[in-house]
Amino acid sequence: MIDYTRSCIANLEAYKVAPPDYDIILNANENPYDFPKALKEEFCAAIMDTAMNRYPDASASELRHLLGQYTGINEDQIICGCGSDEIIAMINQSFVNPGDTVIAHSPSFSMYQIWSSIAGASFMAIPDKKDHYPDVEGIINCARLHNAKIIYLCNPNNPTGYLFPRHDIVQILEETNALVIVDEAYMEFKGESQVDLVNNYSNVLVLKTLSKAFGLASIRCGYCLGPQNLIDMMYKVKSPYNLNTLTQKAAIIALRHRRKLLGRIKTLNVERRKVYKALLELPIEHVYPTAANFIYFETAKGDAIDRAMKAKGILIKHFANPLPGDLSAVRLTIGTPDENHAVLSVLKEVFA
Amino acid sequence: MIDYTRSCIANLEAYKVAPPDYDIILNANENPYDFPKALKEEFCAAIMDTAMNRYPDASASELRHLLGQYTGINEDQIICGCGSDEIIAMINQSFVNPGDTVIAHSPSFSMYQIWSSIAGASFMAIPDKKDHYPDVEGIINCARLHNAKIIYLCNPNNPTGYLFPRHDIVQILEETNALVIVDEAYMEFKGESQVDLVNNYSNVLVLKTLSKAFGLASIRCGYCLGPQNLIDMMYKVKSPYNLNTLTQKAAIIALRHRRKLLGRIKTLNVERRKVYKALLELPIEHVYPTAANFIYFETAKGDAIDRAMKAKGILIKHFANPLPGDLSAVRLTIGTPDENHAVLSVLKEVFA
Repeated sequence: MIDYTRSCIANLEAYKVAPPDYDIILNANENPYDFPKALKEEFCAAIMDTAMNRYPDASASELRHLLGQYTGINEDQIICGCGSDEIIAMINQSFVNPGDTVIAHSPSFSMYQIWSSIAGASFMAIPDKKDHYPDVEGIINCARLHNAKIIYLCNPNNPTGYLFPRHDIVQILEETNALVIVDEAYMEFKGESQVDLVNNYSNVLVLKTLSKAFGLASIRCGYCLGPQNLIDMMYKVKSPYNLNTLTQKAAIIALRHRRKLLGRIKTLNVERRKVYKALLELPIEHVYPTAANFIYFETAKGDAIDRAMKAKGILIKHFANPLPGDLSAVRLTIGTPDENHAVLSVLKEVFA
Repeated sequence: MIDYTRSCIANLEAYKVAPPDYDIILNANENPYDFPKALKEEFCAAIMDTAMNRYPDASASELRHLLGQYTGINEDQIICGCGSDEIIAMINQSFVNPGDTVIAHSPSFSMYQIWSSIAGASFMAIPDKKDHYPDVEGIINCARLHNAKIIYLCNPNNPTGYLFPRHDIVQILEETNALVIVDEAYMEFKGESQVDLVNNYSNVLVLKTLSKAFGLASIRCGYCLGPQNLIDMMYKVKSPYNLNTLTQKAAIIALRHRRKLLGRIKTLNVERRKVYKALLELPIEHVYPTAANFIYFETAKGDAIDRAMKAKGILIKHFANPLPGDLSAVRLTIGTPDENHAVLSVLKEVFA
């Protein structure tokens, strides 16, 4: 039988998603609060009036108009996609040739590496320095040495919660020739967006999403902001009708009611502080400060924690790869007060 | 300024979609009938009960189960995507290396060429023979000569409406080493699906969609059926949450009510026959038989027809590229009886 598979794909593993049969789901950095009932009703009313037999608005113009208002960036400098995943795929299709070097700090969002492999690129992970400070000099040196095409900066970083200071991003923009992708999926939880960089630098793209702070992971709506010429190139590879009508309608309603939706961040951040303090009181080896809706820690009891959580119907993210000193890493999504209480109870038992 | 753009992208044109401000839209082969009100209500009821803050079912398991029932193919041999566009992108990411040869008969669906360019492949269009019979021998010879990786067969063909006889598809499968993609986007209008080939040949993938006969272009739900090993490879490049929850919910309802939705095909096919007969009575140079929900014809009056239609608020597809003998091609989507009546009135005026 002929093997049709590209060599850069053959050894990839299909991205496994845990089955969702848990009572408390805190493994995927989702917002614990559903789209409010009144907004669902508004969405349904819109659907009743929508010609579902027709193709979507290919340019997502109403949505981009609202995203422009929200971000302060011209709507022509925005392109939408099916989550940041499709945006990253479009970036690769537009800019990454097989053999090109793509760099990210490590640990970070796993899809950067997976999408780079699919593009046939050479992916280089620059390990964080002590206390999970990204190695900015290391990133710059590696980018120069390998003439890197792309550098991913996840800000705040998934999974560590680290927030890049603006001057570090600017230094990377100014001292390399790479196209720098600043992934701000979680930025609303901190409120220090660097999106204005797209009007000051020719080599930056910023990724944002409605999946996290807006609480709409179900609809898969990501967007990318950048200098006009880069966005224009990405439109060339955009599938004509990539963002379906249902997603556009829900996203439009979310943006119209953004004060209401983003108002929930305050509660989540109060909870985050509560959980963070509680973690600091436990004998956990390393608990990291966080700018996102999750907390990352390293512990010798990772396996025990994972087992104890599952036994109580709680799904968290345990990174199976062992770290030096018999440690392993755990990422806890901030849930509702009740969910966080349940998580802390299990942790206290494990460490009792 | 550094130019980051891949050379195979630089000369592409962004896919232009006509603005939809026409009273009668017959340019995109959409179903003229909206999703029925009762089914929209069922969809809305499902949404009210859906946790929109959660990521979609990554494996679209309920939807694939229903697609398996509908097609008679094992659900594990099915992968879903955001329209056939995303499926084609996944096929390229899985199987097509830069420089590989991709073949299609011509004219056919323009996205085959665009996606091939994005993949850096060499695309070869094999012109149809007389009366728009695809040149099966020419396709096979070209595939052998260039060791083609992929052959697209659009069946029924967009835009000509041509239906491949099964033995032609089988001959191409047996006499080439290429992976043959049979695009059955419009097959429900004819009812002669060759999807069972995926259980008999190792080099075939079949594409299907809910955009046409099911009348759900808005939701962007395409799917691909194939031998297990090929589908498994495509899962490696599938974006984890590629099919959003809203689309999955709507598609599930559509498949549960498929008899009702597909029952509308009968009316459309009666209309198709009526329009076809009317076209034959006009002095149009070539009107082609069709197995789909559109009719393709070649005429010296293409420009005049396009102008007259627009003047009456009707959007049709006029292929601007001139054909030999001062002809140009028109593709008319079959609409409601009233819409078709309006179209025929304009045509009669143009030819009066």
